[in-house]
Formats: sequence, structure tokens, C-alpha cells
Amino acid sequence: MVAEHDSSTIAESFKPLFYPGSVALIGVSSSSKKMGYHVLQSFMSSGFKGRVYPVNPKHRELAGIRTYPSLESIPDKIDLAVIAVPQSAIFDVMEDCAKKGVKGAVVITAGFREAEIEGGEEFHKRLAEIANQAGIRIIGPNTFGMVNLSANLNASFTPALSMIKKGNISLVSQSGGVCHVVMPYAIKEGIGFSKIIGLGNRVNTDFHDILHYLASDDETKSVALYVEGIDAPRKMMEAAKQLAKIKPVVAYKAGKFRKADRAAKSHTGSLAGKYELYTSAFRQYGVIVVEDVLELVSSAKALAFQPPPEGRRVAVISLVAGLGIISADFCEKKGLILTEFSEETQKKLFDLMPPYTIRTNPVDLGYVANDPDLCGEVIRTVLHDENVDAVALNYIYSWSEDFLELPVKHIIEAQKETRKSVTMCLNYPPGFWDEERSTLEKNLIPTFPTPELAAKALAALVEYGYIKEKFQKCPD
Amino acid sequence: MVAEHDSSTIAESFKPLFYPGSVALIGVSSSSKKMGYHVLQSFMSSGFKGRVYPVNPKHRELAGIRTYPSLESIPDKIDLAVIAVPQSAIFDVMEDCAKKGVKGAVVITAGFREAEIEGGEEFHKRLAEIANQAGIRIIGPNTFGMVNLSANLNASFTPALSMIKKGNISLVSQSGGVCHVVMPYAIKEGIGFSKIIGLGNRVNTDFHDILHYLASDDETKSVALYVEGIDAPRKMMEAAKQLAKIKPVVAYKAGKFRKADRAAKSHTGSLAGKYELYTSAFRQYGVIVVEDVLELVSSAKALAFQPPPEGRRVAVISLVAGLGIISADFCEKKGLILTEFSEETQKKLFDLMPPYTIRTNPVDLGYVANDPDLCGEVIRTVLHDENVDAVALNYIYSWSEDFLELPVKHIIEAQKETRKSVTMCLNYPPGFWDEERSTLEKNLIPTFPTPELAAKALAALVEYGYIKEKFQKCPD
Repeated sequence: MVAEHDSSTIAESFKPLFYPGSVALIGVSSSSKKMGYHVLQSFMSSGFKGRVYPVNPKHRELAGIRTYPSLESIPDKIDLAVIAVPQSAIFDVMEDCAKKGVKGAVVITAGFREAEIEGGEEFHKRLAEIANQAGIRIIGPNTFGMVNLSANLNASFTPALSMIKKGNISLVSQSGGVCHVVMPYAIKEGIGFSKIIGLGNRVNTDFHDILHYLASDDETKSVALYVEGIDAPRKMMEAAKQLAKIKPVVAYKAGKFRKADRAAKSHTGSLAGKYELYTSAFRQYGVIVVEDVLELVSSAKALAFQPPPEGRRVAVISLVAGLGIISADFCEKKGLILTEFSEETQKKLFDLMPPYTIRTNPVDLGYVANDPDLCGEVIRTVLHDENVDAVALNYIYSWSEDFLELPVKHIIEAQKETRKSVTMCLNYPPGFWDEERSTLEKNLIPTFPTPELAAKALAALVEYGYIKEKFQKCPD
Repeated sequence: MVAEHDSSTIAESFKPLFYPGSVALIGVSSSSKKMGYHVLQSFMSSGFKGRVYPVNPKHRELAGIRTYPSLESIPDKIDLAVIAVPQSAIFDVMEDCAKKGVKGAVVITAGFREAEIEGGEEFHKRLAEIANQAGIRIIGPNTFGMVNLSANLNASFTPALSMIKKGNISLVSQSGGVCHVVMPYAIKEGIGFSKIIGLGNRVNTDFHDILHYLASDDETKSVALYVEGIDAPRKMMEAAKQLAKIKPVVAYKAGKFRKADRAAKSHTGSLAGKYELYTSAFRQYGVIVVEDVLELVSSAKALAFQPPPEGRRVAVISLVAGLGIISADFCEKKGLILTEFSEETQKKLFDLMPPYTIRTNPVDLGYVANDPDLCGEVIRTVLHDENVDAVALNYIYSWSEDFLELPVKHIIEAQKETRKSVTMCLNYPPGFWDEERSTLEKNLIPTFPTPELAAKALAALVEYGYIKEKFQKCPD
């Protein structure tokens, strides 16, 4: 039975769902017009290593795998059922799952509470009852599903989600749409995720349940939330706080304005509620609040890569002055302090760099750009300054690779020596600096396509430093 | 002589610079460690159709072209000189240009006023004197250069700028860095530009001069500005106003915060000055103000593609509800009004769509997504509503192409029938919807990677509608 338990029991209950040994795909289809077709395609595209059993009474084989007429006929225990049957069949399927002892279900089937359908609320309740009685954790209904890239598991209706790189960000979203905006961005930018979860209508898995689980999940280093409405705000905030003590949590709350708020209510059937109320509660409970999808992903990425700094004194270093100005602007906008360098650093920078360059914070490398060792020495000097807690680096592709070499080794070494937080704006035409970027990211220097996003990501790191400090001082 | 003239004379003076028949590249080099090497590479990569004359006394040939020992020795008149000589040689070169009757120069050479060098101010003045006396328009010095993609002209030190698609946005920037952040974004997103100009230290070409020129340039449909400091605010605002009467102008002003402002002063040698003062002046003079690089490019793109709407009543249509909520949020944040549909539209949407969907504004197509004709009919109905001035459409790749077909034809037709403004969030994994997107953009439906950017771009269109209306009522 799924009920109120302590957080570790809740966390434990999700393990078979996210790391199943065996999976039944119920409602698979040979027709690309059916949801079940895409569920099967998704699953097959993910490279899942466990046992998989498609269920459809009309077929003996689909996509080259043996297909079973019913859940019951599968000669194996089932950890996870991915369900994409019509709404009218859902209760029978759930009863079958209960009988079979299925541990978790992803219910893609829609038409319960979310829209204007009559009786939606009753459907929702009945589904909850069956699942809770049988102790089945349900993600959904009315969800695109979920992917756990760490387990090569794509339990969704979109095969392309399997193209996302394995990584350590987990995204929990009240909107499948947001996950699908993140998908191409993550693929193009090479941003790695662990879990991407569409909560849907939250029959018995709400934000707080998932947050308890993610606290215990070793593959998750930072958590990104997209929130429209909250049914159980107290539980959510408490779970977020417990999670934020262990790992960083970033939230993007929609429904700031009146009509958007009303739409959010229709969308997932819960009151979206007052934006300011929720965002200030988030902040109070240790959750970092961001303003759009790109900031959500960028912040979560930085937080998955880097430790938080010990303070808010930042240095900005740029290949070209303009980016330094933008970066400095956004750092100050986010409450960071553009530090004054120590006398020692200042002297060293004056010795290292010619007068054409800007040698105070924000530092402009422009005229020595083509000397990667000198640029590296400047970066190292700044990182070692006792007045510097964190550094926003800004490089962009100019001239050619012959002229402008990235001081990759210096950046990595200086960060490792000092263990200070670094984010980097790094942008270039397709193909040009892929190897350099890959080396930087393997060494946990997160890169971002614009100076604004790199500065915002650094601000998220700084904020998490303060959150950790607050929790250390006041553990409750 | 370059002096104060009326705007059409100023505009005329730039034509040989942006559309030269013949170009001399002065200071080209065979060494990739020299700036002149990259200038030659840039030029050769751009596919320029005119006559080109590299100048270097040490070579007879470079990159397969005959090289001339001096400007004087070129047996042709020269419209444009691209200059990348050391700072010590610049005055001799400029005197040569004056003698040769060169019309315009891009001076990449740096080290004049921008930094901490002694005597920088005098160098700057002397350069201005020579150029003004000889009537030579100078872009720079201390600039990466400029590209005019409309003329296959890359007069910069970065060959990769030639990879940007030909289009109708022109970008005028006080920072080469910003142009180089825009470059990979434009290449990856396929955003077309006409001119991209790094003003550098503005010897005799300042913002106002270029704005007068762009007003007369048929290839430019919208103008994006990146501004740090303004030397001649009155002239700039007046030129911006004249330009904004003819075509839309969007500005991103940096230096909002104290330290960033100070850095801006060091960077281009002009007072960055009070952010609020300049941004409110911009607004007053009909310039749309934006908050970051991506919003700058997105707004300029929408404005180059679409006519401004007649009012601020918008409809949001989304494939999935979450994106609709975000879009609605950003529309409202930007002062747009989420319209109420007319009774007729409302009735028609209830007839067209099943109850699972959200049939009020923001409209959610989710459950009918796989019926492109029905989605198209919904889009058409909304666009034809008399209560709707503009539409934010939001599509993201989900399921697969077999299941989800974009209603490309319907969107294009409905926009053409109604001539209302449309922006579209359209995102997908690399390769999946390239053809659909290309068809949409060829038909002037601008697409954006996130719902936030699509909404902001729509807001820029709405704002330009009000600016035009204001100018019609009060022409001065």
C-alpha cells in the first residue's frame, strides 16, 4: 500500500520504477497513429539492459520482440508497467497490475482530471484507490512519461528523449511541454541529464514524493523543477528543504500572471496559486528560483558540475571587453559583488599584461588573446586571489583556431588548485571547439552559450553556497 | 571631407564602404599569428564578387591572389580599404588612402583611445583629422571589422562570420564580443543578417551615422543595437527616431550596474552613463529596449519577418498546455493582453475540439495534436477572430513525425489571409523538422527555440505597432 511514510520509505518505493529489472509495455501498437507505438519505439531506442515484455493481445511480435497477450501471461515478475491504453481500459489494466504485483507504473493514458471532461475527478480518485491499495507508485496519468538516462530507460512517448546525454541533472516537471523544450536544447548543447519526469496528474506521486526519492538517488547531483500549481504546498516545501540540504534544487514557477495562472489550473487540475507566495516560500526553504527555461537548465547544470563558492565576491574575465561588461552587469543584477583584486593580484596583472588590456575587474584579455599561456596565467592569478570566491569566464570564437587557442589546461588546473566556482561562456560555430569544450566539461567546468547565462549560472552557485551555510547554522 | 551633413548625404557616404566595387586589404600576412592573415582569410571566405587587392610589400602572392607592394601601385581606384597594420604604421597608411582617393576604411588596428595607453587620445584625434580631411568614412579603429552578407563581404578578422546566412537584420555593436556571441547563435539557428558592424572607437562613424545609412539600406528590415556608452546622445536619439519611423530598431544597453558601467568606459573610451536615462530616452524616441543578447536577436528577427499588429490583444496557441502557460505569462509580463475570444470563435472552437482540450485562451491543442488539419483549423479560427491582434504559436517536437505533423500550410495561409503578427516557438532535435521550419521561415513566420523568446519577440512586434502609431499621430 502506498501511503504516508517517512522519506526513506518513500524513496525506496521508487527504486523499482526508476531502476526496474523487468518492464511491461501495456498497450503497444503496430500503428504509428497510436500512443502505444511510440512507447514501444521509445523503449527500444533507449538501450535498456533489463527484461522487456510488450503486451498486446492482437500481436505475437512487435518490433522484433515477442509480445504477450496479457500481463498475467508474462512468465516473470514485473517491476515497471508503462501504460498507454485508452482511458476506458485503464481500470482493468490497473487491476491486472495489482494482481501481478507490479511495483510502479508510468500511466501515459490521459483524460482524468486535467480538462473539461465530465467525471474526470472520479476517474482520478478511483485510479488512486486501486494504485494505493496495491502499493503501486504511479507517474501520471496524463504524462508523456519519464526517462532515466542513467538506466537507459525511456518510458515515454517520445523516442528522441533517448538522444539526451547521460548526466547528473534531474528534471521534475508539471509540464511535458517544458521537458520537450529542454530536450532539443540539451541534445544540441550536450547537457547531460539523469531523470526527466513528467508528473502529469499526480495520482500518488507528487512533487514531495519525487523530491524524497531524488535525495537518495546517487545519479542526481542537482534538481530542476518546473512548477505550475502545488496541491500539497507544505509537504512540497518540507521535501524541497530536506533535499536542498543534500543537493541543490532550482525551481521555475509559471503562472505569474492572471490568465496564465488560470490556464495552469485547467492544465493539471491544481490551483496554480499566488506566484509571489510560492516563490518566496521556495527561497525560504532553500530552493533557488529562476525566471525561464534556459536559466533553469543553466543553473541546474552549473550546480551539477561545481561546488558552491564561499562568498559572493566574483571576478569576471573575458576574451573581449563587451562580454565582460555584460557578465559584470548580470553578476551585479543577481546580487554578486564585483570584487576588488588584492594588491598582490593587481600588481601581478600589471606585470603580466600590457597597458592596452583592462587589468582590473572585469579583466579584458583581448590584446593577449593569442597567448594561451599568458591568458592562463592571468586566469590562475585571479582564481588564487583571496578576494575572489568565484569566476565568470567568457570566451567566444574569433579569428581562427590558429590564432586563438583556449587555455583549457590552465583553466582546469587553476580551478582544481583553488576549488573555486567557475562558469564559462563558450560559444563557437558548429564543430570548431568541440574537443576543447568536451575536455573542459569532463573536468567539470560548465560552459554556456551566452555571457548572461554563464553569469546567471554562477549566481545560482553563489546562492546555493548561502543556502548551505544557512542550513549549517540552522539545521531546522 | 566627412563633416556634418544631412542624413541622406551621410547615408550616401557609406555606400562605397558597404557595397564596394574594389577592395584593398592592407597589412595582409602569410602568418596566422598576424591579424592581417585572418583579414585575408575572412575576405576570401566571403565569396565577394568585386575586385580585391591584397597589399604587402614582402609578398607577390598570398592565398593565390596577386599581392601589391603598396596602395599606390594598385592600377585601379579603391572604394574600401580594410586595414590591419600595426598601430605605428596607421598614419602612413591613412595618408596613402587619402592620396589614393579611398572612400571608406575598416580600421581593425587597435591601440588608440580605448585603453590605458599613453597618448591614446592624441592618436585618435590625428586619425580623425586625416580621415575627415580626405572624406574617408572609417569603421573603427579597434574593431573586429564588419560584414555585409548582402554583398558577400567579410571585412573582419573572423572568417567564420561568413557562415552566417544572408538576411535582413542589421546589427550595430559597440562590442565585437557581442557580434561574436550572435555569430554561432545565428549560424546554429539559421538566422539571417545583412550587416554586422563593430563600431570600435568611432573616429568618424558613430551610431547616428550608421543609423542614417541603415535607414536608406534596402537590405535592412530591422536594426539591432548593442550600446555601451554614447558620445553624442542627442544625435544618436534623433537618428534612431528617424530610423524608427521607417523600420524597427531594438537596443540592448549594457552598463546597468556600477562596475559594469566603469568597465564600459574603459572599453570604448566613452562614458557609458546612466542606464535608466538612456533606456527611457530610447523608448521615447521609438527604440525597443531589450534585456539580453538572445532577446535582442529574437526581437530583431521577428521585426524583420512580420508586420506589427494593430493592438496588443494576443492569443496563445500551444501544442501542450505548459508552453501555453509560459507563453501567456511572458505575454502578460510584457504588457500584452490575453484576449477573450469572440462568441463566434468560442463557439467554433467548442465545435472543433473535444472537451479534453483547453479551448479558451491560451488554447491547448494537446489531444488533437495528431490531426494537423484540425489544428490548422483552430489556428485559422483564432487568427480570424476580430478580438485577436497577434498570435504566439508554440510547437515542440514530441512523439515522432509519423504522429505529429506540423500544420505548416495552415499557419502560413492563415497568417497571409489575416496579415496578423505571428511568432512561433518551434524546437526539435537536430534534423527532425528542418524542412518544415525552413518553409515557415521562407513564408516569414519567425521561429524561436523557447516559448519565452517567441513571446518576447511578439511583444517587440506589438511595441513597434504602438511606435508607428505614435509617429503617425505626432510625426515630430
